[in-house]
Parts: sequence; C-alpha cells; structure tokens
Amino acid sequence: MAATVANGVNVEQLIGTVKAVQGTPGLAHFKFRSSSDWRGGAKTATSIQGFYGAGQEDSSRNRAFVLEGDEPPVLLGDNTAPDAVEAVLAALSSCLTVSFIYPAAAQGIKVHSLQYEMEGDLDLHGFLKLSDKVRPGFQNIRVTAHVKADAPPEKIRELLEYAKSTSPVFDCLKNPVDVRVELKA
Amino acid sequence: MAATVANGVNVEQLIGTVKAVQGTPGLAHFKFRSSSDWRGGAKTATSIQGFYGAGQEDSSRNRAFVLEGDEPPVLLGDNTAPDAVEAVLAALSSCLTVSFIYPAAAQGIKVHSLQYEMEGDLDLHGFLKLSDKVRPGFQNIRVTAHVKADAPPEKIRELLEYAKSTSPVFDCLKNPVDVRVELKA
Repeated sequence: MAATVANGVNVEQLIGTVKAVQGTPGLAHFKFRSSSDWRGGAKTATSIQGFYGAGQEDSSRNRAFVLEGDEPPVLLGDNTAPDAVEAVLAALSSCLTVSFIYPAAAQGIKVHSLQYEMEGDLDLHGFLKLSDKVRPGFQNIRVTAHVKADAPPEKIRELLEYAKSTSPVFDCLKNPVDVRVELKA
Repeated sequence: MAATVANGVNVEQLIGTVKAVQGTPGLAHFKFRSSSDWRGGAKTATSIQGFYGAGQEDSSRNRAFVLEGDEPPVLLGDNTAPDAVEAVLAALSSCLTVSFIYPAAAQGIKVHSLQYEMEGDLDLHGFLKLSDKVRPGFQNIRVTAHVKADAPPEKIRELLEYAKSTSPVFDCLKNPVDVRVELKA
C-alpha cells in the first residue's frame, strides 16, 4: 500500500477523491472564478477566492488572492508585475507540476526536485494589429523539464507524458477553449 | 492630436512603437521566459525576469517576479496560492485589460473603470484520467466586462471586439498553441 503522504501529497485523500468521483460523477464539476480591476495604465489586479466544486461552494479561503499584471517599460508599463503572457507560463508551470507530482505520489515514486524552464515566441505584429497573418499569442512554447526522482528515466518520461495528457492548463493551450465575452452596461 | 498620456498610457510612445515596428519588423519579435521550482505537495514557485524584445535582451527588471501556485484543500493543497486554472483567468483578465486600454488611449477615449468577471467550467474526470471523453481543461470561460468610459456603447463594444482580436492570452486560449516538452537529464 502507498504511504499516506508522498511528495507532500496525501495519497489516501487522493485515492478517496478518485473513488468519490467514480461513485458520484457530479462531484467532479468545478467552477473557477476571478474578478479583475484596471488600476491605470497597464496595471490590473485580479482577485480570486471562491469556487464551486465537489458539490458545494468552497469556503476554505478566508481572503482573496490578488494577482497583479503590468507591462515592462518597452511595452509601455511600469514593471510592477509580470506581463500577462509571462503569467500564462507560470500557470502552465504550476499545472504541469501538480499533474506530475500527484500521479508520482499515487505510484509511490519519490520526487526530489522538479523544475520547468519555459520560453515562448511572440510577435507583436498581432497585438499591434499590423498584420492579419501573425497571431497575437505565443507562436510556440518550449518547455524543458528537469526531474530528479527515485525512478528510471523511462518511468520519469512516462510520468511527464501523463502530466501533459492530464494538465488542465496544458490542455487549454494545446486545444481551443470556448471563451465568450459579454458587455454589461 | 492625442494627449501625450491617456488612461495612464504614454500615447506618444505607443505611436512610436507602432512606427518602429513598421520600419523594422524584427523589433516585434519577443521571447518570454519563466523558471519554476516545485516546493512540495501542490506548491510551485515560478520566477520571471528577463525576456528578449525590441532587438535586445531586456534588463529593466532588477529582480524576478515570483508567482506561486498551490491548490485548495479539496484538491489536496494548502491554499497558499491560487490554482493554476485560476491563474489563467487572472492572466486573461490582465491581457484583455491592456488590449482594451491601449487602443482606447490611442483613440483619445477616456476610460473611467474596467472590470472583468470570469467563470470557467472544469470537469475533474479529465485531470483524474477517469474519462477519455472529458478534456482536462476549461470546457468554457464566460467573461462579463463592466466598462465606464467617455464613449457611446457602440464604441465600447467596438473596443471590446478589438481587445478580443488582439489579446495574446485570449488568442492562446481560443486557438491551439504548439507546446513542446523536453526532458533534460
């Protein structure tokens, strides 16, 4: 039997979550939310607190997380916070980490360290609407994973493939997401 | 002529940037980067500092921004930071803000406030690999924009459409991004 806690993850709770969802599929439905406020120039502050999941509104957070965005001076900002596309790389990093660590824990594989280095190409012609042929977003993202774990390279490779196939943010980048914007007066 | 600064944005610099890119297209090529480190359990810290753009390595940031990720207890984390998909909503909020504010500034339209409320549906069957028919990522994202600006509703609607068509993060969600992951020993 797997240890109760592996890689800092409560494996019993993880197995319990899988069983709960298998028994009651509706528990798997989550709604995540955010609320942002423009703070002048390129600055935005986004608050994140409540969400719906496991059949109820979550009330575990006593206060909101506030994530800030800005631009560097070359993109007309004040460098008080990362650019939005840099924040996407950070979100992808967090997501690919969880999506690697949880399955490793479930399989009893001890991970010593896990780092992702990322780089993405972006051509401003899209954002500045100077060309219809250039997309505004990343043209590609290159991820280098550095992993130290008590497992042979083939197993680490397998866990990395598993992470790619189950990471929500990886999926949101690789495959189209239906995003609808409504203006409220 | 437009004011030098509108909505906190240096309009002369914005116009100068557009002209510079028109004259030297290579200036539009940016490379954004991140470097993440797993901190046990569901925790990740991602550092963001340098990037390449406007023909050179940027050196405007004296220190790295550190963006943290974690999970709420119901997803086996310690609630020290937002979940990765919540961070994506924040990145989208920042991006749609800049992509609205800059063109408004260029057109001399004063914006008083701009807020985005977002909600996205996610079904854990994908992340938990309990079904091949359910994607791991957001099934959809609903954005409600609240705008107060010195402009008629039609103009605000037009600016919002402009923001959607030029926002890098909006594009990265709406359209597939080529993400490649390499394991380095």
